[in-house]
Amino acid sequence: MVNTVRCTVQTTGQGDVHDITHAVATAVTDSDLSHGVATIAVVGSTAAVTTIEFEPGAVADFTRLFDELAPRFGQYAHHERWGDDNGSSHVRAALLGSSVTLPFSSDKLALGTWQQLVLVECDTRSRTREVVVQLIGE
Amino acid sequence: MVNTVRCTVQTTGQGDVHDITHAVATAVTDSDLSHGVATIAVVGSTAAVTTIEFEPGAVADFTRLFDELAPRFGQYAHHERWGDDNGSSHVRAALLGSSVTLPFSSDKLALGTWQQLVLVECDTRSRTREVVVQLIGE
Amino acid sequence: MVNTVRCTVQTTGQGDVHDITHAVATAVTDSDLSHGVATIAVVGSTAAVTTIEFEPGAVADFTRLFDELAPRFGQYAHHERWGDDNGSSHVRAALLGSSVTLPFSSDKLALGTWQQLVLVECDTRSRTREVVVQLIGE
Repeated sequence: MVNTVRCTVQTTGQGDVHDITHAVATAVTDSDLSHGVATIAVVGSTAAVTTIEFEPGAVADFTRLFDELAPRFGQYAHHERWGDDNGSSHVRAALLGSSVTLPFSSDKLALGTWQQLVLVECDTRSRTREVVVQLIGE
Repeated sequence: MVNTVRCTVQTTGQGDVHDITHAVATAVTDSDLSHGVATIAVVGSTAAVTTIEFEPGAVADFTRLFDELAPRFGQYAHHERWGDDNGSSHVRAALLGSSVTLPFSSDKLALGTWQQLVLVECDTRSRTREVVVQLIGE
Repeated sequence: MVNTVRCTVQTTGQGDVHDITHAVATAVTDSDLSHGVATIAVVGSTAAVTTIEFEPGAVADFTRLFDELAPRFGQYAHHERWGDDNGSSHVRAALLGSSVTLPFSSDKLALGTWQQLVLVECDTRSRTREVVVQLIGE
């Protein structure tokens, strides 16, 4: 009834967006479940998960919005407290969210043809990200 | 244990927001489940789902924020690559998210009296949207 | 297979952010489930749930973004219609979302060490918030 798949994604830092659709779709088809929901979560407070058309233009447009909302070199209270430089990362990740839940039916995720699941790296440095795919169903 | 309901919503284009609470609540009461979670997902990369008080003022305020964050007639890399005109749609939908998951208990969704589930059309033209309601529980 | 836990959180108004990780983690360990997903939802249209590093600096940075996106004393169509003063609250809550779903395995939520689940009060006055934690799994 519950299947868990974990995978890691190596990122290069802020603005790096990875298509993880194939890994999640494979987790569904390899599972013993046909109908249910998949919860995809990245562990940590400076990365996020969402869906987007994974084409370089749309991804650049999306990243630009985040650069405007929470500029990399802006002033952040988080920096003053910890000597960190990733205040922008925390703001971006909290806004976007660390997990997405999607239905699947007959082994197929409820995604459009031009809609991909992506991991959005918000941190200011390269990270090795752990993604948990939790499948529940029958 | 898993119940799937699909419905379609005809939209008029960017800024069109539809109350889909009744359809989802009916899916719950019509199912053979009383306690669980409902995942509501719109298929495609230019529409989104969230909750809001569905009254014209609040909806207009919300839509205005999106007009500011990702203006319809702004410059988008997505346009240059594909000749599309819906770069704003992709940015909005990726920010807001294509799905919402809510608990239900004794057949009732965990929503407030003045809180509705809404489909937010972000695309620049009218669309026929497919919404998948996946219920898991007992 | 389904476990429901409800808790209440007393808030002081807009910008008040509460760490609810312990309550949710306790719901998981106290349940008869070891593997599954937890859906955490706040009832109502003027509060939200997300994850963030719960330290005063990061929380202040995050709150400041919301003050910029939907200022407390801005002009809102919602005010004109209802005589309310919480148009900013509706916009913020709809943008952020009222629920989060996270996997848990061996009784442990898929959260990083510096990543907390938080209730974000968006309303302009103090509220008593109902949080529903729905656990599904085995």
